[in-house]
Amino acid sequence: MSTEKGSATRELILARAYELAQEGGVEGLSIGTVAISAGMSKSGVFAHFGSKEQLQLALLESVGARFVEFVRSPAVREPRGLPRLRKLTERWCEWSRAHRSGCVLLSAAVEYDGRREGAIREHVLRQQAGWRDEVRHTIQLAVDVGHFRTDTDTAQLAFEIYSLMLGLHHDAGLFGYDEARRLTELALERLFASYRPNVAEARQ
Amino acid sequence: MSTEKGSATRELILARAYELAQEGGVEGLSIGTVAISAGMSKSGVFAHFGSKEQLQLALLESVGARFVEFVRSPAVREPRGLPRLRKLTERWCEWSRAHRSGCVLLSAAVEYDGRREGAIREHVLRQQAGWRDEVRHTIQLAVDVGHFRTDTDTAQLAFEIYSLMLGLHHDAGLFGYDEARRLTELALERLFASYRPNVAEARQ
Repeated sequence: MSTEKGSATRELILARAYELAQEGGVEGLSIGTVAISAGMSKSGVFAHFGSKEQLQLALLESVGARFVEFVRSPAVREPRGLPRLRKLTERWCEWSRAHRSGCVLLSAAVEYDGRREGAIREHVLRQQAGWRDEVRHTIQLAVDVGHFRTDTDTAQLAFEIYSLMLGLHHDAGLFGYDEARRLTELALERLFASYRPNVAEARQ
Repeated sequence: MSTEKGSATRELILARAYELAQEGGVEGLSIGTVAISAGMSKSGVFAHFGSKEQLQLALLESVGARFVEFVRSPAVREPRGLPRLRKLTERWCEWSRAHRSGCVLLSAAVEYDGRREGAIREHVLRQQAGWRDEVRHTIQLAVDVGHFRTDTDTAQLAFEIYSLMLGLHHDAGLFGYDEARRLTELALERLFASYRPNVAEARQ
């Protein structure tokens, strides 16, 4: 098997695993169902991913990389500060729209909360903490360029933004995306405004 | 079978169904596993709940009633306005602490989002919309007694509070309850402050 063909097969397996995980979660994946869905034998899947856990980890890695690419890349092309933070949240909202029928990353955060130990839980934790750091960093740049107050608690604001994204995902699934998006955007603008420097500080 | 004994059996079945739903979701319930877990025959479970769907609906009804009782009852004993709203969010946080290992109501909201049609989806929607109305009503009372500005958008604030509760549940599962609670309480106080009347309006 050529490396190119091997890589394409690997991608195909991950795409099928992704679809199955959207329905039944990451923990519900099995090499058997992934193999059937990819039109392969179980040993064919094992040749690419040595175990179910390795397949689950590779899936989370690949979706996580796609999320960061989708949200972060357009954001970092914007000027530091509010423009970049706004682009980041806008793209995050778009990711939520595109994954209304279930976000594997969010499901994994629920599946691998405190109840389960092990390599996948560690991976999910690292991924979530890494993204939170990314958001905090984008907020810190907004402080640095004077768009937010110097006493801004970046961990606090990052939590508040993350919460609104969870609210968007939740409300979109129940009451429809458009109204949920409207509420989310209004909340984000209220939130950003609450961290703007007051006039006195801005003049300094 | 006496009515009293029948009612106790019904409660026992619902308690076992609740534990199973915490692990595998509401959709994952089956009369067979619930029967085994309750130490009964399948026909015994069927005698109380005519179908799997009726069992699922009864479970959601019972957890929903417990949630409202746990959160709402202590709140309505507080004076209308901010004291009542603060008690409501405090109890909601406590519910989240007590259900760290999985909230069946939240899982159901994810399981029965736009992807599934039917009686359970309708029930979840009604339950979630009803609770959102309850929160809006509590906010409206805070507007009525002058604790929030007269132009307060109650749907907007109810969404923002709900989002923070999702953030609490999410962060608690990943990073630990105490830090998540600290962030949530700070966010709630910031949020409430942002809806307080300004001095001029308060003087009117």
